[in-house]
Amino acid sequence: MSSPGLTPTPRTTAQRLPARGRHDRATIDAILDEALVCHLGFVQEGQPFVIPTIHARAGDTVFVHGSAASRMLRALDAGVPACLSVTLVDGLVMARSAFHHSMNYRSVVLLGSLKAVNDPGRKLEALRAITEHVAPGRWAQVRPPSENELRGTSVMELPIVEGSAKVRSGPPGDDPEDLALDCWAGVIPLSLRAGEPIPAPDLRAGIAVPEALLRYAR
Amino acid sequence: MSSPGLTPTPRTTAQRLPARGRHDRATIDAILDEALVCHLGFVQEGQPFVIPTIHARAGDTVFVHGSAASRMLRALDAGVPACLSVTLVDGLVMARSAFHHSMNYRSVVLLGSLKAVNDPGRKLEALRAITEHVAPGRWAQVRPPSENELRGTSVMELPIVEGSAKVRSGPPGDDPEDLALDCWAGVIPLSLRAGEPIPAPDLRAGIAVPEALLRYAR
Repeated sequence: MSSPGLTPTPRTTAQRLPARGRHDRATIDAILDEALVCHLGFVQEGQPFVIPTIHARAGDTVFVHGSAASRMLRALDAGVPACLSVTLVDGLVMARSAFHHSMNYRSVVLLGSLKAVNDPGRKLEALRAITEHVAPGRWAQVRPPSENELRGTSVMELPIVEGSAKVRSGPPGDDPEDLALDCWAGVIPLSLRAGEPIPAPDLRAGIAVPEALLRYAR
Repeated sequence: MSSPGLTPTPRTTAQRLPARGRHDRATIDAILDEALVCHLGFVQEGQPFVIPTIHARAGDTVFVHGSAASRMLRALDAGVPACLSVTLVDGLVMARSAFHHSMNYRSVVLLGSLKAVNDPGRKLEALRAITEHVAPGRWAQVRPPSENELRGTSVMELPIVEGSAKVRSGPPGDDPEDLALDCWAGVIPLSLRAGEPIPAPDLRAGIAVPEALLRYAR
């Protein structure tokens, strides 16, 4: 049973705009689950790298995967400190002043060390979670990984222990003296939308698009 | 005059899927310009942090900004190594096998050190670039920053010197023996779309939504 919230630490406590900071798991989990990609940060010879990759949450763990030959996963395999961030952009906040322009967003930053998932059963569970995270229902429709494919794939996990979410929503916060300006103010909502599915050129005739992909939405 | 491409370095050369790697400035600039937010990586006491923030490219430079009190910008002010990444998700690649599932995306990773922009004229130029990056034409419509607001804002710049882009596009690449499977395969295109503008609750009557915000698209 996971705890309802993460314990704030100095490095996961918002300093300037504390009202935007959240540590409850419901908020954190919903953001992790909606985001299609994360940005994974790690350090090599003093240089930080930030690499986009697909993730999936399962309970109190976030899984990432990649080729067993991946530079990123080999670097992380040593258990070095890492940072996993996801960001959802919800809208442009248009104020009357340049200064008060902002964005509505929901983001999560998790800190910790990743470790390799080597148990074959758990590795398969992680790959299933990643596939289902991107396209619910897909795992049952496709050929599962072969032993060779499993060997060529690395899976790593980050426990959800230290981290926080940040959320901004709502209208611009203009200065009172700017409200008289002859300038439009408000929010332009933004969302990730799916277009018409594009069949593979080599798709056999008579195979319908699965319902969940026809009406795909995050 | 900027060079047409960045010089590949060992740490910016794709090792596994070299066909996806790009170093030409046209590709890099287009991705930086389309992305609304970047993820900025830096190290503090051995711990990497990856923080989402708004950026803008102007020529051979990427600007970021924030409160002068921002923990991130104060950390970066020391000229420590940083990594700035942007990612655009273009589609879900649905293969017949779990293994060949992928995403169509365009990403850029830039390495280097940021430095503070202190010259008031250049700082204003950077803030203008950031505003125009998010909403073209907006700068001319709004109240410009006051001296106090400028003092409370830090601007930093990263020269575009070392980095690379990665691009995946097109249909899934299934194994020949999987083509006979009774499984749909193809691409679900994804894009960031704008919804109906939401006027601020305190917007004066009779102020129309600017044309560029009514038909906002990235």
